[in-house]
Amino acid sequence: MACLGSGQGVLTKEGHRPSCNQSEGKMIIVPESQIPALVTSADCFVAVEDVFASMSKQSAYNFPVIREAIGHADALYGFKSGFDRESLALGLKSGGFWPNNIHKGLANHQSTVFLFDADTGKCRAIVGGNLLTALRTAAASAVSIKYLARQDAKVLGMIGAGHQSTYQLRAAVEQRPFEKVLAWNFHPEMLSRLEDVAKELELPFETVDLDRLGAEADVIISITSSFAPILKASQVRPGTHLACMGTDTKGKQEMDADLVAGATVFADEVAQAVTIGECQHAFEKGLITRDDIIELGAVITGRHPGRSSPEEITLFDGTGVALQDLAVASAAVELALSRGTAIEVDF
Amino acid sequence: MACLGSGQGVLTKEGHRPSCNQSEGKMIIVPESQIPALVTSADCFVAVEDVFASMSKQSAYNFPVIREAIGHADALYGFKSGFDRESLALGLKSGGFWPNNIHKGLANHQSTVFLFDADTGKCRAIVGGNLLTALRTAAASAVSIKYLARQDAKVLGMIGAGHQSTYQLRAAVEQRPFEKVLAWNFHPEMLSRLEDVAKELELPFETVDLDRLGAEADVIISITSSFAPILKASQVRPGTHLACMGTDTKGKQEMDADLVAGATVFADEVAQAVTIGECQHAFEKGLITRDDIIELGAVITGRHPGRSSPEEITLFDGTGVALQDLAVASAAVELALSRGTAIEVDF
Repeated sequence: MACLGSGQGVLTKEGHRPSCNQSEGKMIIVPESQIPALVTSADCFVAVEDVFASMSKQSAYNFPVIREAIGHADALYGFKSGFDRESLALGLKSGGFWPNNIHKGLANHQSTVFLFDADTGKCRAIVGGNLLTALRTAAASAVSIKYLARQDAKVLGMIGAGHQSTYQLRAAVEQRPFEKVLAWNFHPEMLSRLEDVAKELELPFETVDLDRLGAEADVIISITSSFAPILKASQVRPGTHLACMGTDTKGKQEMDADLVAGATVFADEVAQAVTIGECQHAFEKGLITRDDIIELGAVITGRHPGRSSPEEITLFDGTGVALQDLAVASAAVELALSRGTAIEVDF
Repeated sequence: MACLGSGQGVLTKEGHRPSCNQSEGKMIIVPESQIPALVTSADCFVAVEDVFASMSKQSAYNFPVIREAIGHADALYGFKSGFDRESLALGLKSGGFWPNNIHKGLANHQSTVFLFDADTGKCRAIVGGNLLTALRTAAASAVSIKYLARQDAKVLGMIGAGHQSTYQLRAAVEQRPFEKVLAWNFHPEMLSRLEDVAKELELPFETVDLDRLGAEADVIISITSSFAPILKASQVRPGTHLACMGTDTKGKQEMDADLVAGATVFADEVAQAVTIGECQHAFEKGLITRDDIIELGAVITGRHPGRSSPEEITLFDGTGVALQDLAVASAAVELALSRGTAIEVDF
């Protein structure tokens, strides 16, 4: 491909635009198997930071989400879609949750991103979306840490020990010079995976109870599938930044509603936060209103100052939006084109 | 490919199931350029007939439609999606209307069909959807003619002369031994394209006014983008079958509301018929209710007898549903696999 790459695997802001022309009439395919060697945590950070800013400027918006229990294989199937007028990223992520995949050696969560040419409506690219989903979710909490955590944050608290937790940990440590990781999980024996990553990152790691986690952590990331509050307001000390990344469905909950109500609350998208995000419970109880929730993009663009004091508790409600998926998939396409690994098919 | 094909280009009912295993871990691509030589009008007829029956048996359903004016290139972009538990066709058609494409030598309507494996959630196939959209729309009116037109229908009336009209004509003549085609268009000079197809089919062709068209035609297909009624109740004689294929958006209209109200009304999907289909106006005026509209699938499965007398006016409201797109795209994939033309990509 006659395309200039960044060389460092980190995209410039301009890098997100479809700058490298793909061959006329060709569709680009970036298979799941290429993503690990192609896209870094840092690439996703830039892509997600940019698209949150676009959302805040009303340049990018998410379309309504479709989610259907299809009555086959116990699957939940659906789409998240949107358009960013700045980067011209248009398309959708489709797939869902297939709980029986585990018996077939496949990931239960399956997703594929489809990008369209905003100038012609032709399908531009198909990108494997499994690892990208993990990376873009981790990037969202990392962006929240960059803009909302105290500069002197030293202790990182992790709630949850699933597959996604390791991506969260890796992305978080790029934003502050953390000196220690404290971790809690409903099944503590499952924390070994997270401990291995902490070791690899040369960070001391301790399994703790929630009281100690809340009392010592400067930043807490929650990434569970809980349907009941885990952390209470009384357990969290002033100045903490909470990145609540697990709640993405009606009924799920990681934080006590009082903890949400007492924090300064930021979200990727306010509409999703109050319906399917961590804010849903405080919102339903009337403890907070939509106007109490600040789009993280407003902090990125400078329209909102973000953290106002070292004592403030900040909370980021990361529900996950289509525009994140489109942004990281677009980055993957540009990287694959620049490195000559993109598969091009006549279409 | 070690796959048995039908050899005749016409799929059996079983042929719609993913019967030919694609290679493990591969995604199938059937480009737009392959469709003309691959999929016949008859293939699409079988696929659409089957899926209308599945819908009527509650085995298949369409998900909510997403349609967005994206604020770029004057484009309308969106998705139609659904799932057929009988054929296991799962996925969506995405694309839309790009009015400036004509200046780029591209079709204004662009669509791509994405099929998913209902057992795993993995993306199974990508299929060019432009010609298939024309074929599946024509197949729907042809299915309605098979089940609702009088057996002795001799004269076919065509209203509309756009690109889609030629597909409608070709599909219709496979259902009855028509002896003549009468045609009307708002711009009569554009009817030459339809006349050429009639000549090719060795059918006498006449450009007529609406009074004569209504007075002589046994079957009338309307396929325009009209936003005002074209044909009135007084112009249509008893025993006529009307296939109203143009109205697929709020505000569009081809038939006078009284004509709809006086006919026995069938539809691909009742919910769409009363909101974006030809039925919307009679429904809004209170001239018909949802219960007055019969799913065409109920006639196919034998739950409804269809036409009750030679004097009855039957009307089919074809709004176009995702399941048609998935059905014909699935047929295209099976045909491409059986003929060895499918492009397979590691994904």
